[in-house]
Amino acid sequence: MSAQHVIATYLIETSLPLQHAAEVLAGEQSTGTFVRVQRESDGIRARFAAQVESIEDLPLTGARALPGTVGDPALRHRARLRLRFPLDNFGPSIPNLLAAVAGNLFEIKELAAIKLVDLDLPPAFADRYAGPQFGIAGTRELMSRPDGAMLGTIIKPSIGLSPDELGELVGELAAAGVDFIKDDELQGNGPSAPLHERVRAVMPVLERHADRTGVKPMYAFNITDDIDRLEANHDLVVAAGGTCVMVCVNMVGLAGLEFLRRRAQVPIHGHRAMFGAISRSDQVGIGFRAWQKLVRLCGADHLHTNGISNKFYETDAQVLDSIAAVRMPLLGLNSTVPVLSSGQWGGLAHATFAATGTTDLLVLAGGGIHGHPDGAGAGVASMRDAWESAAAGEDVQMALRRSAPLRRAAELFGPVRV
Amino acid sequence: MSAQHVIATYLIETSLPLQHAAEVLAGEQSTGTFVRVQRESDGIRARFAAQVESIEDLPLTGARALPGTVGDPALRHRARLRLRFPLDNFGPSIPNLLAAVAGNLFEIKELAAIKLVDLDLPPAFADRYAGPQFGIAGTRELMSRPDGAMLGTIIKPSIGLSPDELGELVGELAAAGVDFIKDDELQGNGPSAPLHERVRAVMPVLERHADRTGVKPMYAFNITDDIDRLEANHDLVVAAGGTCVMVCVNMVGLAGLEFLRRRAQVPIHGHRAMFGAISRSDQVGIGFRAWQKLVRLCGADHLHTNGISNKFYETDAQVLDSIAAVRMPLLGLNSTVPVLSSGQWGGLAHATFAATGTTDLLVLAGGGIHGHPDGAGAGVASMRDAWESAAAGEDVQMALRRSAPLRRAAELFGPVRV
Repeated sequence: MSAQHVIATYLIETSLPLQHAAEVLAGEQSTGTFVRVQRESDGIRARFAAQVESIEDLPLTGARALPGTVGDPALRHRARLRLRFPLDNFGPSIPNLLAAVAGNLFEIKELAAIKLVDLDLPPAFADRYAGPQFGIAGTRELMSRPDGAMLGTIIKPSIGLSPDELGELVGELAAAGVDFIKDDELQGNGPSAPLHERVRAVMPVLERHADRTGVKPMYAFNITDDIDRLEANHDLVVAAGGTCVMVCVNMVGLAGLEFLRRRAQVPIHGHRAMFGAISRSDQVGIGFRAWQKLVRLCGADHLHTNGISNKFYETDAQVLDSIAAVRMPLLGLNSTVPVLSSGQWGGLAHATFAATGTTDLLVLAGGGIHGHPDGAGAGVASMRDAWESAAAGEDVQMALRRSAPLRRAAELFGPVRV
Repeated sequence: MSAQHVIATYLIETSLPLQHAAEVLAGEQSTGTFVRVQRESDGIRARFAAQVESIEDLPLTGARALPGTVGDPALRHRARLRLRFPLDNFGPSIPNLLAAVAGNLFEIKELAAIKLVDLDLPPAFADRYAGPQFGIAGTRELMSRPDGAMLGTIIKPSIGLSPDELGELVGELAAAGVDFIKDDELQGNGPSAPLHERVRAVMPVLERHADRTGVKPMYAFNITDDIDRLEANHDLVVAAGGTCVMVCVNMVGLAGLEFLRRRAQVPIHGHRAMFGAISRSDQVGIGFRAWQKLVRLCGADHLHTNGISNKFYETDAQVLDSIAAVRMPLLGLNSTVPVLSSGQWGGLAHATFAATGTTDLLVLAGGGIHGHPDGAGAGVASMRDAWESAAAGEDVQMALRRSAPLRRAAELFGPVRV
């Protein structure tokens, strides 16, 4: 038996005294139930019970209690609670870990808020889970972009293009100089555009481009599907010379991602669609800091974080925290590339670089490239110019003076962020 | 191409005009993005765009807008929105369906609330997904309980018992006459109680009981784990004569459940741990009616619904709606057994039967059996007496007069529900 532990950090609200609530939660998620039962010996409690590591009082936010909450609202407290779970209870198994740290507890009626916001995991998880296979370095090598921000785009319209139209669009985007192209998450494997037809339409275009230029842009084919189809979908892509597969992590599950990782020969692009269902409420669910650790353990080489000034609900502070979280070392695993998307264009480069201090980012622009007034080539140039300027320490005004494509982009998408 | 569709029903709140918000949502989750892009032809829109099927105004609930919501709070509306998605967009693939009906939309900042509450699925899903293999009839046959409520219990303490203690407890519970016993969802495959040791401790006890009585209680071993271990875990149980495996559906994912279903030789007991993370908020996530359809398609023979008067947050009305949802026919699939648990005891039988009109239920009692003042045998008798009385049309008072074990239970757990 090891003495290793997992520490789970929660934000909770309750009308119970905090210490009591913490102990109920720890008991419910380990040895116990609300009442002591026969055979629940002191020895069992000592060895298997989760322990309250710390409780930090926080001010209430004014949010309404979750549905079904009991307790006097006047007595409500908010706290950051850290619980310590013996690893022996579940072993380094992510599915079984989740039952302990993120199982029934969301339904406890004494909790007016209960959100899992972080997990400290012992090294045993990195022994069992392989983590990213390619990471930043492997991704850069495959797309021939040794330094600078990795710039990519998304096929638009998301769905509905014929194979011929798709091939034509990919040719334009490759010629425009993108490092990376991805299927939309809505483009799965439906009868109107089966994966094998997309692969057949896209890969010859990229191969011809590579023959001409020596550079093969990375195309992330969305292979999201039932588990038994993941491997065949992956193999189809690899057999055609593809260098990346994408899955919607929540649709195949963390377990499905891990299953794919064990078989993958190319980087796995992790899309976070549906993450809002577990994370958008600040009263219940799982926060990005906790979730991204599990996604990385399960092997995502790329992971969506959103970007600043995005069209979704997250603030810049939240987005930057997500990017920082993905960039933080984790149990000696290979790195994962943060993927910045939604509303991205060249005018966000300086502010993003200033806040993150890195170009080890995959920045995806849909409208910012497809919608540039002078075409996709100018769209890519505007972003490349902006990121090179930012990384060189120039200010935005200098970048605008030096880059005509960026100036043109700013006319449509501006103003630039400082 | 088929003309089949999926209809997704949402509860939404927004400050945009409802028709406009509905169209934005439909566009974002099918052909489009907020702005029209090159190649998004009228033809593509006609064939692939999701359509607004209906919008029904609802009164506001007073809940606070989701974090990050934009728009004038004074203009906020609540509505039930039904969107119609062409099946061709994703095909009958649950993971790809989810990207359309439950993907990025939870993060749209124009939505102050967005919850997926129902799904109408076309028959193609039942062609691709096998659904429950055993259902009610197969479960009854395996546990030798041809009629009446199926009564079961959960191993307590949840974790920490030695193999010898576990075997002893299972012997007591079998002698007490339970139809069904399950591992706690916290009991996975950790080093302190590996699955193979539990199987070795439990199955000989059940086999000896079966030799004596002709009845082998069903034991649901929790085999939740990484995908690559599911099949071996299942095979271990079956090889030892086990008749049921349990998975935490959200931990292996719907895709993991479906993977297991294709290999299962015994009923799959579907635990819903972590469901609260996506469902407890009434402002965001996925409701039980929508979720349970996917779980059934993926093959759960049993599915947890909670029971009335449970210790979690759900109201009786919600629980009864969940039970009714699971019992509703779905695309010609085999039935799934609703599993009522948490706070269950004999005194809830009459009220539960009156509300559901059926005994095709698996009712699990932890304290109600382990904690009966005269022991587990009397606990099971109290529940059996109560359910037989209810199903025979007697009232609660008659049941109490006729059953000493139920009277004793009522002293401790009462009062009975009428």
